[in-house]
Amino acid sequence: MTNKSLLDHLNWRYATKKMDPAKAVPQEKVDAIIEAIRMTPTSSGTQPFELIVVSDPDVRAKISEVAWGQQQINDGSHLLVFAAWDNYTADRIDAVTNQLNDERGEIPMAKEYYDNLKANYLPRPAEVNYAHAARQAYIALGVALVAAAEQEVDSTPMEGFEPEKVDEILGLKERGLRSVLLLPLGYRDNEGDWLLPMKKVRKSRETLVSQV
Amino acid sequence: MTNKSLLDHLNWRYATKKMDPAKAVPQEKVDAIIEAIRMTPTSSGTQPFELIVVSDPDVRAKISEVAWGQQQINDGSHLLVFAAWDNYTADRIDAVTNQLNDERGEIPMAKEYYDNLKANYLPRPAEVNYAHAARQAYIALGVALVAAAEQEVDSTPMEGFEPEKVDEILGLKERGLRSVLLLPLGYRDNEGDWLLPMKKVRKSRETLVSQV
Repeated sequence: MTNKSLLDHLNWRYATKKMDPAKAVPQEKVDAIIEAIRMTPTSSGTQPFELIVVSDPDVRAKISEVAWGQQQINDGSHLLVFAAWDNYTADRIDAVTNQLNDERGEIPMAKEYYDNLKANYLPRPAEVNYAHAARQAYIALGVALVAAAEQEVDSTPMEGFEPEKVDEILGLKERGLRSVLLLPLGYRDNEGDWLLPMKKVRKSRETLVSQV
Repeated sequence: MTNKSLLDHLNWRYATKKMDPAKAVPQEKVDAIIEAIRMTPTSSGTQPFELIVVSDPDVRAKISEVAWGQQQINDGSHLLVFAAWDNYTADRIDAVTNQLNDERGEIPMAKEYYDNLKANYLPRPAEVNYAHAARQAYIALGVALVAAAEQEVDSTPMEGFEPEKVDEILGLKERGLRSVLLLPLGYRDNEGDWLLPMKKVRKSRETLVSQV
């Protein structure tokens, strides 16, 4: 529970540039962030990504090396890796429908819906399906950034890394996954972070929003 | 302010299938959702999308027609259209750096950073840049879904529409934009929505999450 609003969380958070290596995020806070990611809605409910939670410092050091040496990966205590499905497959979609059947009972409309989904997705190139799955991971990133802020945990969303090398370090290719986003979790270094004292800058509403 | 947690919001919300056409979302709630989208973090702070807020019922009816007739677009009171930049351009990135300079003062590191960004982005095909910009809109979608729930406003994220036709209806192509996501806002029809009484289904933590 919190008496802070979403807007408070969005204003509190920032892309932390220097984390304090002496402070670890408690497991219950990591769990709360994971739970928010798990509950994130995705296209047709397929949740077409997995989350790898890396606490092992040696593995994080290896990942940092293929992420332009970004130190938050080492100085934080946990690294979340969002890894999208490399393709939609019949097995993967059937697992979704089987779970729906188990938990809601069989609904003819649901079967028809997912049959159509398979007819639409399965003939597409793997790259198109991967791109669609990767987008869903970004919804979860948005939710995860709010979740971390609610827990007063700092985080740094990262696209800047060599995905094939992260996939290799974590053995993702064999699992049909491709790394999309990194999110180190930790605590800001109040002295050492150049970004912390700076004003948060966003476009004006007039620039970003129009009305019809 | 709210005394509900993010998880409460994620559990309350669902992809509303039937909205009550008699209930309009108050402007201050729409504004709060827009403000959360405006504050959403994006890659390198470029905010490479615009938000079009459609309240005009005739325009919404036209959009519904090219979105497989989905009625939430009509029955809700507002439709949010997330439209990504069709490309990164020097002008667009320079506008970001100019605003940073105005609000934070000139910082040599920032100039270097965005010079590198231009050197990286501008030679890439428009389609690659659009795909990257579109992903950022999905971060904002994640935040918007939470924002709507915090306001106790229902919403239905939609990828199922003909983007070129929505672009045409809204004149987006001329503005260098491409529609990516629709999000009708409104209020659930407590009697008429088949999905409302159903259990929310998500993968187990064991299925979605692994530890290293």
